[in-house]
Amino acid sequence: MEKLAMLYEGKAKQMFKTARKEELIVHFKDDATAFNGEKKGQIVDKGIINNKITNFFLKMLNQAGIPTHLIKELAARETLVKAVEIIPLEVVVRNTAAGSLAKRLGLPEGTKLERTVIEFYYKNDELGDPLINQSHIELLELATPAEIATLTKLASKINQILSTFLAARQVDLIDFKLEFGKTSAGEIILADEITPDTCRFWDIESREKLDKDRFRRDLGGVEAAYREMYKRITGQKWQ
Amino acid sequence: MEKLAMLYEGKAKQMFKTARKEELIVHFKDDATAFNGEKKGQIVDKGIINNKITNFFLKMLNQAGIPTHLIKELAARETLVKAVEIIPLEVVVRNTAAGSLAKRLGLPEGTKLERTVIEFYYKNDELGDPLINQSHIELLELATPAEIATLTKLASKINQILSTFLAARQVDLIDFKLEFGKTSAGEIILADEITPDTCRFWDIESREKLDKDRFRRDLGGVEAAYREMYKRITGQKWQ
Repeated sequence: MEKLAMLYEGKAKQMFKTARKEELIVHFKDDATAFNGEKKGQIVDKGIINNKITNFFLKMLNQAGIPTHLIKELAARETLVKAVEIIPLEVVVRNTAAGSLAKRLGLPEGTKLERTVIEFYYKNDELGDPLINQSHIELLELATPAEIATLTKLASKINQILSTFLAARQVDLIDFKLEFGKTSAGEIILADEITPDTCRFWDIESREKLDKDRFRRDLGGVEAAYREMYKRITGQKWQ
Repeated sequence: MEKLAMLYEGKAKQMFKTARKEELIVHFKDDATAFNGEKKGQIVDKGIINNKITNFFLKMLNQAGIPTHLIKELAARETLVKAVEIIPLEVVVRNTAAGSLAKRLGLPEGTKLERTVIEFYYKNDELGDPLINQSHIELLELATPAEIATLTKLASKINQILSTFLAARQVDLIDFKLEFGKTSAGEIILADEITPDTCRFWDIESREKLDKDRFRRDLGGVEAAYREMYKRITGQKWQ
């Protein structure tokens, strides 16, 4: 399958058309941004690592019965995926207080949440991806109540699968962001990526951050953290 | 009924104990604040007007079957109310985009909403009263899912009653904030005030603002707007 015209370029990925209307190629870049694009940089080999980790997780989720857009890995930075209409919602699942939740609710970062928190953010760069509630989602017709219920259910299941897998690899899944899309048949499937760009991963013992917060917060050791997650998740040596 | 010790002083009201544990006296001040207390001022006779308007609306809602904390008006600025444990949520009902909703969703102020929007804000000055969702409410144990359903249902009913009443007085109810409390018996009842401090009222024809936005946004004619709303709501001349 060959890349044709670029359909879309995002902060960390490019999407290309293929000869088949219903299949796209996603290309993972090394570009990193934070704070809605205010901070920009590069993380060496991030594209390769994120492609590999996403493939690993999506395969695992598919096997567990979660529908995803994954078709197959094509190259170090490229994967063939099903074309979907992306639902303009970021679905965030949180097990431990960190980042914006810690700020919003006044909870110290690292507070284990007694219940999993699920949040919906409106994917809209101009508005800064604001938190919205079900009433806003219905007003903007971003999803129906039944679709919101499906998203919530899928997000919970994915959380359970990923948390369990990661805990066995000494990683605490603090929180993560998902994006979903609708196929032409109307099925809601998981799209986008699952990577240290979109998840907070903390070492289960040392509480060391192994994710993009190292870049956001200038903590150093950014590349090493991505490589460490590559190793822990795939069980393979890095190159 | 006599005022005893002051129990609490808020931005616009004081609460006093009475000889009866289950009854409190609320005193309405002329103080006005905006932007979480950053802007401060006085609106002449606001306390009198807001006490009268709140009494008027709560009586009307009581008659329509909405339980409220109202017992009876005692004086120009004072009303006897049932003591409740305030639920630390601001329940905001919106019929037209204005204020923070217009900003959050990128809608021009004045856009009529095709569906009523209901929002919950966490009553917490330190955190700036953040928007929260049902998942946050459950995490913080601010209300149970059944209580959230009750709050939503009551807020919708109140919206219908107030909107209809106000439309007949040439006022468009743009949005408003409610607070609820729990009685010692566990019943959820409407508390707090319903006034130009807590509602956006626009003249139905001219779209002129007749509420606290005149103070917030330095539009002038603040006192005149409060007096106009007094007249339209109570049907009485101002003093």
